[in-house]
Amino acid sequence: MDNVRDEGRYRIFQDIRRKRGAFPEAIWYPDGTTQHDIVVWCSNDYLGQGQNACVIEAVKSAVDATGTGSGGTRNISGTTHYHVQLERELASLHDKDSALLFTSGYVSNEATLSVMSQILPGLIIYSDALNHASMIAGVRGARCEKRIFRHNDVAHLRELLAASDPNAPKLIAFESVYSMDADVAPINAICDLADTYNALTYCDEVHAVGMYGPGGSGLCGALGLMNRIDIIQGTLAKAYGMIGGYIAADAVITDAVRSLASGFIFTTSIPPSTAAGALRSVRYLKQKDDVRIAHQERAEALKARFRSAGLPFIDGPTHIVPLLIGDPVRCKAVSDFLIEERGLYVQPINYPTVPKGTERLRFTPSPFHTEVMMDELMDALNESWKTFDLPRVSVAA
Amino acid sequence: MDNVRDEGRYRIFQDIRRKRGAFPEAIWYPDGTTQHDIVVWCSNDYLGQGQNACVIEAVKSAVDATGTGSGGTRNISGTTHYHVQLERELASLHDKDSALLFTSGYVSNEATLSVMSQILPGLIIYSDALNHASMIAGVRGARCEKRIFRHNDVAHLRELLAASDPNAPKLIAFESVYSMDADVAPINAICDLADTYNALTYCDEVHAVGMYGPGGSGLCGALGLMNRIDIIQGTLAKAYGMIGGYIAADAVITDAVRSLASGFIFTTSIPPSTAAGALRSVRYLKQKDDVRIAHQERAEALKARFRSAGLPFIDGPTHIVPLLIGDPVRCKAVSDFLIEERGLYVQPINYPTVPKGTERLRFTPSPFHTEVMMDELMDALNESWKTFDLPRVSVAA
Repeated sequence: MDNVRDEGRYRIFQDIRRKRGAFPEAIWYPDGTTQHDIVVWCSNDYLGQGQNACVIEAVKSAVDATGTGSGGTRNISGTTHYHVQLERELASLHDKDSALLFTSGYVSNEATLSVMSQILPGLIIYSDALNHASMIAGVRGARCEKRIFRHNDVAHLRELLAASDPNAPKLIAFESVYSMDADVAPINAICDLADTYNALTYCDEVHAVGMYGPGGSGLCGALGLMNRIDIIQGTLAKAYGMIGGYIAADAVITDAVRSLASGFIFTTSIPPSTAAGALRSVRYLKQKDDVRIAHQERAEALKARFRSAGLPFIDGPTHIVPLLIGDPVRCKAVSDFLIEERGLYVQPINYPTVPKGTERLRFTPSPFHTEVMMDELMDALNESWKTFDLPRVSVAA
Repeated sequence: MDNVRDEGRYRIFQDIRRKRGAFPEAIWYPDGTTQHDIVVWCSNDYLGQGQNACVIEAVKSAVDATGTGSGGTRNISGTTHYHVQLERELASLHDKDSALLFTSGYVSNEATLSVMSQILPGLIIYSDALNHASMIAGVRGARCEKRIFRHNDVAHLRELLAASDPNAPKLIAFESVYSMDADVAPINAICDLADTYNALTYCDEVHAVGMYGPGGSGLCGALGLMNRIDIIQGTLAKAYGMIGGYIAADAVITDAVRSLASGFIFTTSIPPSTAAGALRSVRYLKQKDDVRIAHQERAEALKARFRSAGLPFIDGPTHIVPLLIGDPVRCKAVSDFLIEERGLYVQPINYPTVPKGTERLRFTPSPFHTEVMMDELMDALNESWKTFDLPRVSVAA
């Protein structure tokens, strides 16, 4: 822990409370009791659905009807009508036979990938180098042959596939949207390789479901590629504003996973009210292309401001706007200045979440971040850049 | 999957909906639409707290105040005032410096045990042979030396400790209450060994917190041994009626775990309303010795009936009453008869949850299971025993 502190990456968890109906506003408790109003700029409740009145109503109604916890694992009294309905809705969202709920997106990746080698003996997993920690945990848990391909590098993936036993079962595991670098996978090219080399495809869509594609079906949906992805993994904790994760796939796959995966079997199911809120949220966003359009517009508005100001951000095609600082001490100093002096909350992202030397502030503008909020943010960032003597990039670049 | 079906252990998840305020009554949806009234006999909402009006009110108030999901990992905007308060309460419950919340009890075991070998290089973990799947996953994840001691066998544990390098850091991991066999660990003897061999102690109290000990502090609390357990792990999903897990320990331990454990760092925190409901539930049960007394009385009442009827149950010192059937086909047949003909729901417990040949029905009587419910259950079980020609034990035994 002393090393962590010495490197300036000791993590202080900011104690906050969001204000229902006023997203992205919240209260910050710097010392446990004092209260300051803040604007949250780093939430993964990307569309503010955790504050949506209809979602809140669905949660409260379910609590009134059935109580709080589920009271059991899925097998032992913890499968409720809410779980069944939500799984059906998620299967439909991704145009699959079936879906399977987990207690979190992390657990859905870890539990599912861990058992794929039991389902397909001799399996080789091809995993993108920047896959999320939960996928790495799953690949590790599978204890089978694995090949790590360079991030988004289709040529490298092809090489690795070509060099493998043609008869071995294969699975390519990747994300559609990478949240730390705000970039997207070459999904079509990966699916082509999967066809050529007879590999299954596993795509983590946690930073895309609800936000991209028809009805919020994700980036694979947006690209018309859902039917080429064997296992789509998603979350209820980001765009849908709840908690929990899931996979959608052929029934033969979900049936095997639910029968084998320790992280699915031996854990209490999500509360019925969580399933009810998620169901309402998924159905709501199915109808709301305007929310998705507003989301992209707000992200572009922030990126345009960063561009004009010459702030060194990663200018990707997604709703995530990472602003690079490059060392943990200054990254934390800027974050502290923003929240303490200006009431603007954006958490420093340090190692191990991102590589050392690429420490950053990761902004997630939502449809509810206004022009005024952006003005205030730019003013505060411009002052930080002066105070901490941070570099700008050429505005023409 | 064909093998699983052939062995008669294919799992059908019963689709139910609990009735708020009428615990243990619920609705069963055998085909997705038809509804039947049932009594649930296998819930892990051991004290019915998931239906407690004050817990429901706490959840709804928090949803009204702050919305549904937390919107982030603990580090990135997902630490709310509710989480902070709950961690303080749980630390106090177990008389420790600090506590750390996880998305589930499963994750708390897996994530914590996985990093203990990073915190203590050269660590040897001594793990009870019947530890829960989540602890096994954690021990496996730690990738350090491990020794499995025979279930509750102190002599075997001593042998293994004595045979190890005296200078190696050591951790003994066990449960206080084993839920499938309804037995308890020799906690005092394990602590003595830990002292002798300078080992840390890790105790899973998920089937004990809320139900045993002063204020519901668990079996270690009941025995006055909390200060001899270095890491107490518990759940919010059973006696407390919510979802989520935690550890309570010295701050130096929780600080290291929160800084290193992948399953803690890279996942959305539990919803603020879940933390609020759990906080209310913990505080409620702190005051309610009468609930704990009623719970034990109801369990003893059921055991007395099973004893008189010569039903082959495991007569242990806890609130859990496992009734042995011994093969998966008849186990499922009895369970089906009970729910279909009598509206009594107790899930068959098969491999891999218990060893093959020890298939069972696991009853969890709560303070809300009445004499009339027990009469109906005994009548149905007696008929099942005749119909399926199941053996009875000598009543004198």
